[in-house]
Order: sequence, then C-alpha cells, then structure tokens
Amino acid sequence: MAKITHVSPLAPKGGFPSLPIIEGVRFSSIEAGVRYKGRKDVTLIELVDGTVMAGTFTSSATRSAAVLDCQDKIDGPTDGGAAIVINAGNSNAFTGKNGMEAVGKITGAVAETLGLSPQRVFSSSTGVIGEPLKWERITNVLGELKSGLRDDGISDAARAIMTTDTFPKGAQATVSGTGGEIKIVGIAKGSGMIAPDMATMLVYMFTDAKISQRLLQDLVTRATNETFNCITVDSDTSTSDTLLMAATGTSAADSIQGGTAVCDAFYGALRDVMLDLAHQVVRDGEGASKFVEVRISGAASNSDARKVALAIANSPLVKTALAGEDPNWGRIVMAVGKSGAQADRDLLSIRFGDVLVAENGWVSPDYSEDAGAAHMKNEDILIRVDLGLGSGEAVMWTCDLTHGYIEINADYRS
Amino acid sequence: MAKITHVSPLAPKGGFPSLPIIEGVRFSSIEAGVRYKGRKDVTLIELVDGTVMAGTFTSSATRSAAVLDCQDKIDGPTDGGAAIVINAGNSNAFTGKNGMEAVGKITGAVAETLGLSPQRVFSSSTGVIGEPLKWERITNVLGELKSGLRDDGISDAARAIMTTDTFPKGAQATVSGTGGEIKIVGIAKGSGMIAPDMATMLVYMFTDAKISQRLLQDLVTRATNETFNCITVDSDTSTSDTLLMAATGTSAADSIQGGTAVCDAFYGALRDVMLDLAHQVVRDGEGASKFVEVRISGAASNSDARKVALAIANSPLVKTALAGEDPNWGRIVMAVGKSGAQADRDLLSIRFGDVLVAENGWVSPDYSEDAGAAHMKNEDILIRVDLGLGSGEAVMWTCDLTHGYIEINADYRS
Repeated sequence: MAKITHVSPLAPKGGFPSLPIIEGVRFSSIEAGVRYKGRKDVTLIELVDGTVMAGTFTSSATRSAAVLDCQDKIDGPTDGGAAIVINAGNSNAFTGKNGMEAVGKITGAVAETLGLSPQRVFSSSTGVIGEPLKWERITNVLGELKSGLRDDGISDAARAIMTTDTFPKGAQATVSGTGGEIKIVGIAKGSGMIAPDMATMLVYMFTDAKISQRLLQDLVTRATNETFNCITVDSDTSTSDTLLMAATGTSAADSIQGGTAVCDAFYGALRDVMLDLAHQVVRDGEGASKFVEVRISGAASNSDARKVALAIANSPLVKTALAGEDPNWGRIVMAVGKSGAQADRDLLSIRFGDVLVAENGWVSPDYSEDAGAAHMKNEDILIRVDLGLGSGEAVMWTCDLTHGYIEINADYRS
Repeated sequence: MAKITHVSPLAPKGGFPSLPIIEGVRFSSIEAGVRYKGRKDVTLIELVDGTVMAGTFTSSATRSAAVLDCQDKIDGPTDGGAAIVINAGNSNAFTGKNGMEAVGKITGAVAETLGLSPQRVFSSSTGVIGEPLKWERITNVLGELKSGLRDDGISDAARAIMTTDTFPKGAQATVSGTGGEIKIVGIAKGSGMIAPDMATMLVYMFTDAKISQRLLQDLVTRATNETFNCITVDSDTSTSDTLLMAATGTSAADSIQGGTAVCDAFYGALRDVMLDLAHQVVRDGEGASKFVEVRISGAASNSDARKVALAIANSPLVKTALAGEDPNWGRIVMAVGKSGAQADRDLLSIRFGDVLVAENGWVSPDYSEDAGAAHMKNEDILIRVDLGLGSGEAVMWTCDLTHGYIEINADYRS
C-alpha cells in the first residue's frame, strides 16, 4: 500500500468534530493485525436492546460476502440488542465460499461474545479484494474488544475503519422531538473507488430516535440518493459499500411518525449529516486538490441532467484541467456532448461560479479568461451548466484528478 | 500546450511505414500558423474526378461545424473531383454560428482554388474547443498549398494533422482484384479524448478501388465498428471525430461488387488497415506505457460483453494498477460488478495472458502472484474475462493511466 504521508488539503479545517454520545451505543477498536501494523483495524459496536437497523448497500453484481449477509439481515426482528463489527485492510470480496464462511465465523463469534442472535450481528470489511480474510485474527480479539467497549469510543472507530483515507470523518446534528431532543451522529470512511451507487464507502449512523424500521429505512434510502449517490471520485463502484444506521430509541422524545413536522426535521438533519459525510469523502478523494460541485439545470429531464452531471464529474479530461486550474470549458462542452443526454449546442450556457463563460453555442462576449482562471484558483469550484431545454436538474460532487491519485493507486497492494 | 518531448514507448519500432502512391490522390501540407509555430499544420488533399467518398463521424451531441458539414455532403454525387482540407490546433467546435461560417469560407475557397463544387470539399479541424478559428490563415495559403500538391506527400500529411500525438500513424494493404491490384492506405491522428464512438481522431483512408458509394459506406461503417469503436484511452468522446475514405477508381481492377470473394478480401484488408491505425492511436495514448487488450467471453449477450469490456478498459483503478505493473485482479472483479452486465461471481474466470488468475468466485488454486506479475511486466497486456453465462463476446483495446496523462492534460492550453 502506498504510504499516505499528507492529510488532504481539502480536509475540514477544524479536524474531527466533537460528537455527542448516543445512549445505548458503545464502541471498541483494537489493533488486530488483519493487514496493517501499528494501527487499530477492527471495531466492535454494541447496540442496546430494541435498536432498529436500516441500511443501503452497493449495487455491484460482485458485492462482498459481508454486504450480502447484511442485506439478508437488515429488516429482521428488533427484539434483543444488535452489533456491528468492521475490519479494515481486507474486503473479503470475491473470496468465494470461503468469504461467506468467514462472515459466518465472525458474526457467530460476536453473537456468542455479546449474547446476541447471529441474525442481529452486521459486519463490514474494507480493503484489498480477492485475498482470504484471516477471520481468526478478528475472532481471537473479541474478548478484548468487548472489555474495551465505551460510549465515547466513536472517534477511535472513525480512525480504525480508514484505509487510504487521510483524515477521519464525522458529523452530527440535533433535532427537537416531541418531549425531548433527538441526536444523530455518523462516521464514514472512503476516498477511492468512489462512485454512485455507492462508493468504497463505509458509513455508520446512530440516533437515539424512537422510529419504526420501515420509516427509518425509507428515510435512509431517500437521504442516500440525495447525498452519497451524488458523489464520484473516480467512477469506480466498490464491491463493499455499506451504510448502516442504528436507532436505539433511548431519546426521551416520542416515537417519530411519518408525515409529521418532527419527521421532516429529522429527515432534514439526517440528510445534512449524510451530506456532510459525503462531502468529506470527496474532500479526501485520492489525490484531490479541488472540491468540485457540478450543478446542471434546464435539462429535458432529471435523468438527463444526472447523465450530464456524471459525464462532467467523471471525465478525466475535465478533472485534469481542474487539477491544472485551467478554465478549459471546451472540455465541459465535450462532456455534455458525450453524455447521451438531449442537448442543443446553441441553447447551452456554462458558468464557473458566477462567471458566465459560454452561451448561445459560443463563448460569452463578456467572458474573460482571467475571470475563469480566477475561479479555478479556488479550493472549492462550482461548474454550472444550463441546457436550456426543460426543468431537469441534478448535482454531483467530485474532485480533480492529480498525480496523487496515480501515486496512490498504481501500487496500492505492494 | 504541454511540451511533448518523448515519443511514446509503445510506438511501432519501424517508424512511419512506406506507403504506396494511390493514383489520383495528391497531398500538400504547409505551416499556416493556425496555432502552432515551426511546424506544418494545414493539409490539402486533392482527389481525382469520379472519387467516391464514405465516412464515419463522432456521435457527440456537441459535434463541430466541420463534422456537421461533412455529414451533409458525404453521400453526394460523385461527378467531378473532390478535396479534403485539414487543420490542426483549433477544432472549431462550439464556436456557434461563426463556426459554420468558417467552414463555409474554407471549403468555398478550396472549391474555388481547385475548380470544384463546394459540395465536394470536406474539412476537418482538430485542437482546442471553443476558440474562434482564424480561417483566413488557411484561405490565405491555399494558392501555395495547391502548387505544393504531390502524389507522395502522405507522410508529411500524417505529421501535419498531429496535435498531442508523439508519432505519425500510417498503414497500408494490397488486395488482388479481378484484373489488377487494389491498394488501401490510411493515416490517423489521435492520442487523447479517445473513446467510442469514436475518439478525438482524424482518419483518412485512400484506395484506388472502383466501388459504389453505398458499398464503400457499408464496408467503412462495419470496419469502424470493429476497430475504432473498440478503442478507448480515457472514455472521453471528441466533438470532432472524423474518418473519411476516398476511392479513386484508378486501379486496373474491375469494380468491386458486394458479396464477392474480392469484396470479402477488400473488406478484410480495409479492416486490417483500420485496426492497425486504431492500435497505433492507443499506442500513442496520452502518457501510455502499456498496450492493453481486454477480451470478454461467456457473457449473456454481445452487448453485456461490451459493457464489461468498457467498464474494465475505462476504470481508472484498473488503468493505474496496469501502470504500476500490479496484477490487481480484484479491480477487474470490481469493474465487472459495476458494469451493469449480468454476472455471477461464482462462474467468473479471469486470465492475464495465459495465466489463470481466478475462477469459481475466487483466486485459482494454481495461481501464483509471480506469474501474474510477470505478465504485467510485458509492454502488451491481455486481460481475459469469461463470465460463464452465454456466448456473448467483445474486445476493447486501451492503455494504462500514468503521470504522463496528467502532465499532458492538466495544462493543455497554456
């Protein structure tokens, strides 16, 4: 694995945020030597009796054993507690029947250690694909993990799940419920193989809300579509993407009901936390030096708008121009043209931030290259394209393509 | 524009080939200063009376004025001669109504200079998108270009059409017709923004065959699908891709009729020349250090096979692993999974050259990392994936993704 010596220049300036404790959630992380040396790489999360789970997962046809297992269990009965176990360094993906066996051994041992049903133990693995996961390294340390469980262990967990990440990622929000506050916290890892749907991402969200499994799942699915499914680093979809959300019901607030103002507020806060984490993933995009928002309007449909947004956000020529701070709007035109969406050259307009670059099929008469170049010097770049055809809209967040990406990926395994 | 100081390590060892003269075709190239200094950048090609033209073009929705104009004219009447005029340095794409005007001025002036109908003058422009083409720089030198026309000027033309290319590209074949030989020659440029359909490519093919416009167009379309539409450097489709083929009818051989053995031989030779040129374009892929063939079999359909081939050939993670000579077959699995094609992990097999890497959903018991790594040291790499589902097949040719690509593209315009 390439040595990561620098924190991304786009990392949040304040460092890892202070996250409130969610009653009923305890964390423990340990150095188990799954692959790495000298760092924590396995995390155990214990969830109190009655915790409701929801999740969203990669759509890859070659998804990992852990993902398949989580998908099986996610909407199961909520009596009894639950647990999540995560390892970094080995994704246990494309490891055949041995992969499924490893998941069974790990979740079974966690169930035994914590006195749970194996049906309520969720696992994630991230790292190299196709190498056997030495599951004993995890099961051997479960006793030690159990004795280390503590309610303020989330920042250690955010670090233990990292692979090529250069900084740990966390976010939080608080909502006023009926009769009490509701807290939401989340941690995420991911910086390469990031593309909808969903990315090499692991995301763990916790709330003390009382909420039904079905409503929680609906809100999580909707928020995923508006956040993690709108980011791309390199167009490569992982085999292991997992978002798990646990609602412990330990808040004093009443149970959240669909269609209420509290539910809307909860959804807004959930979406904000997930968007914050999604942006942090892009800001840790492998080799990233620019955070880029691609905003499309005026498309014939939302689906056409998304095609254009993706074509721009994934274009190596656009992304290398951004790395070079080159306001090369011709490459934006190229990407619109190749997207497969309906487009009319003479109706297209392009803006970099507030600078109108092109309109009516040509460069704008008021555009100056200096103004475009000035916007490109920013750390955060906004590319806006209006297709002038209809009311279809979409947004994607991405980063630039730099030498750093190649350094990290040309020799990840050695 | 980035300074290109090195010829691609994958360039054909013998240099530019010796191409036979096609009677009825004359070339002239000149330094017109369209954008570059100190090199020829405009080429005029004069075609004898009765020349039949065929062509294939980019599918971009934002294609250039020259492409739109060629598409209008390509199947027009063949009485009288014809001409092709090409400039490098400015693509005249996304230049609004001025772009169409520039094409009209250039083709009109060529028609006047050579005594042709403007309907028989085809133009191509390659280079930066969105900047006005100073067409006078071309029309001003047409007299000089005309006086320089010579039947052995093809190698100069192959150089004058280059942009970021590091070597000129040519190929040829000869077919035995009825009553005489038939020659085929071609030149091409292109090294970035290369993706089906078709690439930032300009390709000019010439033959002395007697053949109808309709049959020539059929054969050219079919051969394009099997050659230029199976290459990708960076998944970015150009606004300017153009392949033009001229058949002068000057061979002593009888006219080629569809469905005959001579037609089959002609098609085979045409396809070979186009494949040779397509491979040369990949071998000149921006920053390329590896030539990669991706061969898919056993897919549920040919269309699924092509999806998988494209997902592998365009994956930045696969391409950076190739650059690092890392036999990272896990990324191949990832690309299969994200392709959208039907796939079953446990039926998938992967080979690097003849080395069986993975089968039955896991690494092959006989696979050694050393054998995989040894194949990766080759300049030419073969990735074979069998999906084990049906008889669908596809092939794509691509190159790796290196620091060189980013060097070339992060500051192309400055």
